[in-house]
Amino acid sequence: MTESPQDHLGYQAALDAARSGAAAGGIPIGSSLADATGVIASGHNRRLQDSDPTAHAEIDALRAAGRRRDYRSMTLYTTLAPCALCAGAIVQFKIPRVVVGEHRNFSGELEWLRERGVEVVILDDGQAEQMMREFILNRPELWNEDIAQQTEGAHP
Amino acid sequence: MTESPQDHLGYQAALDAARSGAAAGGIPIGSSLADATGVIASGHNRRLQDSDPTAHAEIDALRAAGRRRDYRSMTLYTTLAPCALCAGAIVQFKIPRVVVGEHRNFSGELEWLRERGVEVVILDDGQAEQMMREFILNRPELWNEDIAQQTEGAHP
Repeated sequence: MTESPQDHLGYQAALDAARSGAAAGGIPIGSSLADATGVIASGHNRRLQDSDPTAHAEIDALRAAGRRRDYRSMTLYTTLAPCALCAGAIVQFKIPRVVVGEHRNFSGELEWLRERGVEVVILDDGQAEQMMREFILNRPELWNEDIAQQTEGAHP
Repeated sequence: MTESPQDHLGYQAALDAARSGAAAGGIPIGSSLADATGVIASGHNRRLQDSDPTAHAEIDALRAAGRRRDYRSMTLYTTLAPCALCAGAIVQFKIPRVVVGEHRNFSGELEWLRERGVEVVILDDGQAEQMMREFILNRPELWNEDIAQQTEGAHP
């Protein structure tokens, strides 16, 4: 088991952020960035709230953390497996470790992260999975837009 | 030669954005997003201006373009080879084609983009190369921060 008490706090911040995004009518994905001193910043998907397609949860958390010289002591927490954009950010910023709530609703780029030397821990968190599953069922067109999945007959 | 008259306009918008970022004291990298109808949006690196480490030029251009359902008819232009964050955005948004000003100051993730099926065109633009080279020479600490390159003795 690679989950630590530190991970509990970090992941809880990501889950809280996802719920806060959901409560504001957004896509319910949350993220946080933490090191041994605690949670540095958290964020959630803001595509709908800010009309910003790059504001995935992980990007929002990294933005909230501000300018940093060194991410090598940090872990990034996220409620859902990171997509290519967010996995790219993790690789670019040289974040060595990612803790993922669930990867059943979206498989993401976990294999590519591992290929690039990132440690990936999967929690199989049922709460994150259920929240995401309900959103996808209720608003499939918004979810497809967020992952650039074109649906037949969708308006441009 | 895969460069088209359309590419000239798209790349010019990226180069103009880089110059505009430089004039504001920022990291001189610009980007634009275009389709057959013309330039949709442009942007430049805003790490320094906005204290936002995720505001690379390509991310700024994608953000400026707002919510889109389909990027499959678009080309992304950038003055410098995309890093993992920006290459990840290109892969995630399924942008099929990237036109790069230069890849001498930073080699980026061009090979990974090609592996993922993205067409990569390199212009070898001397203007972009010189602007970037001068910035790196004058402000190496800012450039190292932008590419998460830790320098010995750098303060945190």
